[in-house]
Amino acid sequence: MTSFPTSIGTSDASTIRLLGQDLAADLMGRVGFGELAFWLVAQRRPTPSEVRVFEAVLVALADHGFTPTAIAARLTYLSAPESLQGALAAGLLGGGSRFLGVTEDCGRFLADTLAAVDGPLPIDDAGFDDLARDAVTAARSARRLVPGLGHPVHKTEDPRTPVLIRIAEEEKLRGPHLRLFEAIGRVHPEVLGRTLPLNGAGVCGAALADLGLPVDLLRGFALLARAAGLLGHLAEERRTPIGMDVYLTVDRNATYTTPDPS
Amino acid sequence: MTSFPTSIGTSDASTIRLLGQDLAADLMGRVGFGELAFWLVAQRRPTPSEVRVFEAVLVALADHGFTPTAIAARLTYLSAPESLQGALAAGLLGGGSRFLGVTEDCGRFLADTLAAVDGPLPIDDAGFDDLARDAVTAARSARRLVPGLGHPVHKTEDPRTPVLIRIAEEEKLRGPHLRLFEAIGRVHPEVLGRTLPLNGAGVCGAALADLGLPVDLLRGFALLARAAGLLGHLAEERRTPIGMDVYLTVDRNATYTTPDPS
Amino acid sequence: MTSFPTSIGTSDASTIRLLGQDLAADLMGRVGFGELAFWLVAQRRPTPSEVRVFEAVLVALADHGFTPTAIAARLTYLSAPESLQGALAAGLLGGGSRFLGVTEDCGRFLADTLAAVDGPLPIDDAGFDDLARDAVTAARSARRLVPGLGHPVHKTEDPRTPVLIRIAEEEKLRGPHLRLFEAIGRVHPEVLGRTLPLNGAGVCGAALADLGLPVDLLRGFALLARAAGLLGHLAEERRTPIGMDVYLTVDRNATYTTPDPS
Amino acid sequence: MTSFPTSIGTSDASTIRLLGQDLAADLMGRVGFGELAFWLVAQRRPTPSEVRVFEAVLVALADHGFTPTAIAARLTYLSAPESLQGALAAGLLGGGSRFLGVTEDCGRFLADTLAAVDGPLPIDDAGFDDLARDAVTAARSARRLVPGLGHPVHKTEDPRTPVLIRIAEEEKLRGPHLRLFEAIGRVHPEVLGRTLPLNGAGVCGAALADLGLPVDLLRGFALLARAAGLLGHLAEERRTPIGMDVYLTVDRNATYTTPDPS
Repeated sequence: MTSFPTSIGTSDASTIRLLGQDLAADLMGRVGFGELAFWLVAQRRPTPSEVRVFEAVLVALADHGFTPTAIAARLTYLSAPESLQGALAAGLLGGGSRFLGVTEDCGRFLADTLAAVDGPLPIDDAGFDDLARDAVTAARSARRLVPGLGHPVHKTEDPRTPVLIRIAEEEKLRGPHLRLFEAIGRVHPEVLGRTLPLNGAGVCGAALADLGLPVDLLRGFALLARAAGLLGHLAEERRTPIGMDVYLTVDRNATYTTPDPS
Repeated sequence: MTSFPTSIGTSDASTIRLLGQDLAADLMGRVGFGELAFWLVAQRRPTPSEVRVFEAVLVALADHGFTPTAIAARLTYLSAPESLQGALAAGLLGGGSRFLGVTEDCGRFLADTLAAVDGPLPIDDAGFDDLARDAVTAARSARRLVPGLGHPVHKTEDPRTPVLIRIAEEEKLRGPHLRLFEAIGRVHPEVLGRTLPLNGAGVCGAALADLGLPVDLLRGFALLARAAGLLGHLAEERRTPIGMDVYLTVDRNATYTTPDPS
Repeated sequence: MTSFPTSIGTSDASTIRLLGQDLAADLMGRVGFGELAFWLVAQRRPTPSEVRVFEAVLVALADHGFTPTAIAARLTYLSAPESLQGALAAGLLGGGSRFLGVTEDCGRFLADTLAAVDGPLPIDDAGFDDLARDAVTAARSARRLVPGLGHPVHKTEDPRTPVLIRIAEEEKLRGPHLRLFEAIGRVHPEVLGRTLPLNGAGVCGAALADLGLPVDLLRGFALLARAAGLLGHLAEERRTPIGMDVYLTVDRNATYTTPDPS
Repeated sequence: MTSFPTSIGTSDASTIRLLGQDLAADLMGRVGFGELAFWLVAQRRPTPSEVRVFEAVLVALADHGFTPTAIAARLTYLSAPESLQGALAAGLLGGGSRFLGVTEDCGRFLADTLAAVDGPLPIDDAGFDDLARDAVTAARSARRLVPGLGHPVHKTEDPRTPVLIRIAEEEKLRGPHLRLFEAIGRVHPEVLGRTLPLNGAGVCGAALADLGLPVDLLRGFALLARAAGLLGHLAEERRTPIGMDVYLTVDRNATYTTPDPS
C-alpha cells in the first residue's frame, strides 16, 4: 500500500500536531500567524528578527489599492456573493508574472547571480557593485529586463524600499541578496543609461531570499499577503460596493466593432 | 464620470497610504501581518488582546493535514507547477460549506440567536444555558444541524476548543458568542440525547464574532489561515511530492462500470 | 484496497474508452462536442432532436458582452498572461447565484413545482396556468423572487425566449417545464401587478430540465457555454486589449475616503 | 471618456448581437456549440469541414479518466458542493504545462519550425522529413523535449493520432503542421535512438494549428474540452462519489515525518 509522508499536520482523537508541535498546547496563543506561515514553508521556526522582517514584507505586499486583481475579486463577488472563496481565488489568480511575479523573479535573479559567483561572495559594496554591473550588463545583452527595477507610479523612489532595507539592517538580516539588490540600484544607470527606482516588490523578494526561503516559492508569500488585502477589498465591497459601477462603466462605454478574422 | 470610493489603499509618486496610514513609515515593521489582516477587514486597528485572540484563531485553522483541499492543491501543482497561484486557488476553492464553512455557519448561528434575544443578554451561565437550550431545540425541530457540534476525529473533545476559550478569557474577550457556544456544549446532550464535542472550527467562529468581525466574512479568515497551510503543503510537495502517488493510487484502482443513464 | 468506480473514461495501452465507447473508433469525427457534453453528464447518448435543443441553449448562454465575469477574466489575463487557465477559471468563478445561477434556479423552481403536483400533470394551457398561478402566488407570499422573470436590458421581451420555445416545439421537446414557464409568463401580471419578460437564462433552465438533465447541475451547462464565451474574450484581449484601460479607469477615478470601522 | 471596443457581443432592449449576428434569429438552433466556440476565438465562421476536425479534437481531449485534474475537481466538490463553479475551476486550474499544456506546446513547436523555414514549405514527405530531422536534432542539442512525443500509457501508439489524421485528410485539412508532426513520428527514432508514439494531445495541437487558430490559445481549446469532461466527473460524483474515499485513502495512509528544515 502506498503511504503518503508529511511533516505538516496530523491528528488523533485527542491531539492535533502541526510541524512536530502540539497545536493547542504549544502554538495557539504563543505563535503569531506570520511566524507560523514562515515555519510551515521553511519547516523551521523563525527567530524574532526573522519574523519582524518577514511580517514587514507581508505588510508591504498586502495591498496596493484598485489593482486588476482587486477589481477582478470584486466583480466576482458581485456575480457570486455566496462564494467568498471564489472571489478570493479569482483575485489570487492574477498573481502571476506581471504583477505579483516580480517578487519571485527578483529573488531568483539575485539568487542565480549569487549562485554563479565563483569563489566567496563580495564583502564590500565595491564587490557587490562589480557583481551587479556584470549582471545588469548580461541582462541587457540578452534583452531581458532586470526584475525589481522601475515602477509605474513611484518613478523616483518606492517608499517601501529604504524602509525594508533599514528593518533588515536593524535585525542583522541584510544579507547578500539585499546587498546585491542595493548595488543594482547604484550601478544600473551607468549600464542602462537611465535611473530607475528599486521597487517594493523587488526588495521584498530580496529580503525573503535573505531569510533563506525557497526562491521558487517567493510568489507564494506575495499571494498570502495579497489574500489579506483581498479580504479587505471584499469586506469593503459589502459595505460600499463598486463592482456594479465598474461593470456598468465598461458596458455602457463599449463600442461594437466588426469582427476581424485572426 | 463615475468615481470609485475606497478606504483601503492609495498611492502617489512618493507615498503609499493604506487604511489612512503611511505604509512605509507607520506600518512596515511596526504592525504584524495578522494585525493588518484584522485592520483591513474591520477598518479599525485591533488592540493587542484582540490580535492575540485573532492570531490564535488563524493558527488553529491553518492546517489539518491531508484535507481534501490540501490534496486538491497538490494535484493541481502536479499538473501545472508553473502556476503556484493556480494551485493555491484550487485549494482555497474547497473552502465552502462542508469544511471551512463551519466557522462562518457557527458564528452566524450564534449571532442570530443573540440578535433574536428580546431585551438584555444573559449575564450568567444559567441564562446562557436557557438561551442555548431554546436554540438547540429550535434547530432540532427544524431538522437542522447545530453548527460547531461534532468532529469526525475528535469524538470526545477537540483540543483547540478549551485552549481558545482560555486565551479569550485571559484577554478579557470571552464575550456572548463564546459564552453561548459553551452553553450549547453544556446543554445539547439533554436535547439531542447524545454528547458531541464543541469543534475547533466552531469555537473559532464564536471567537471571531466576539471580536466584532462581520459574520458574513468569517469564512474569509478561515481561508486566509488555510492559505498559509496550503503554502506549507505546496512547499512540501516540492520537496517530497505525493501528488503523483495519489493520482496513481486512484487511477490504478479504478473499476470501470457500465454507464447508467440518470 | 479501496477501488474507485467510474463509468466515464478508462484506457489501456492500445484503447481509450469513454462512456463505454471506443473513443477513437466510435466517437471522434462521429459525435459532436455538444452531444458528447450531454452524454457525459446524462450517461446516455442524446437524440439528434435533443442535441439541437441542447446546443441552442449553449449558444444562447455563451456570451452576453462585457459581463462582470468577462471583465474579471480579462483583468486576470492582464495580470498573469502566462496562465490562460487562471484567467478562464477566474471568469467562471463569477458563475454563481446572481448571474449564471438563474438557469439552475429556474429549472429547480419549475421542477419543484411539478414534483409537488398531486396526481397527473396538466394537459392543457389552462391547467398549467392554474399551476403557475399557485406557484407565483406562493413565491410572492414567501417574498421570494420567481426565477426567470425580468431582465435589466430586455425589459419587454428577451429575444432568446420565443426562439428557444419554437426550437423545442419543432423538436417535440417542449415538455412540462417549458409549458409551466410559459404559463408563468401569462399569469404573473395578475399576481404581481406588473408584467415582466421571461428571460433567456430562465428559458434555458426550463429547456434543459425538459431534456431530463439533472436540475442540480444545470448551472454546469451555463458554465460550459460561458467557457466558450470567455475564450472569445481572452482571444480578443490578446488582439485588442481593454484590461489595462479598465484598471486605469477605476484606479484614476478612485476617491480615497477615511476608514469607517464596521 | 475611455471606450472599450469589442466584436463579441452587445445587446439592446430587443436584440442580442453576437459576432455581428443576431443571436436569436441567426445563431440559436442553426449553429452548433463547437462551431460557435471556433467562431468566438477566430472571429470567422468555420466551414463544415473545419467544424468536423475541430469537434473531433474537442471530443479527443474531453476526458481521460481519473486524471489529477478530475480528482482535484471531485475533492473540491466534496468540500464545497454548493459551488459547482468552484469545483469546475479547480479542475481547470490543473490545465497547465504538464498535462493539458502539450497541445499548445506541440502546436507552437510546429508553428515555430514552419515559421523559420526560409522559402516555400516542403511539398512532399521527404521535404517534411528533412525539416523534422533538423527540428528534432536541434531540440535534442538544446536538451529540450519534443512536445507530442511519448505517452505514459499508450507506449506504442496513441489511438487518437491516426484517427485524427484520417479525419483531417478526409476534410482536406491535413496541412503543414500535421504533416510536420507525422514526419517527426517517422524520423525521430534515428535522431533519438528510440521510438516514441505521437500522442493525442500533440496531434490535436497540430490539427488546431492547421485550422489557423492562434497558437497562443491552443491550451484554451483543451480547457474547453476538459470543461465538458469535468462536468461529467462532477455529475458522476453526485451519483457515485469517490471524493471521500480518495481523501480517506490518503489521510489514513499518511506517515508523519519529522520536519526537515529546507
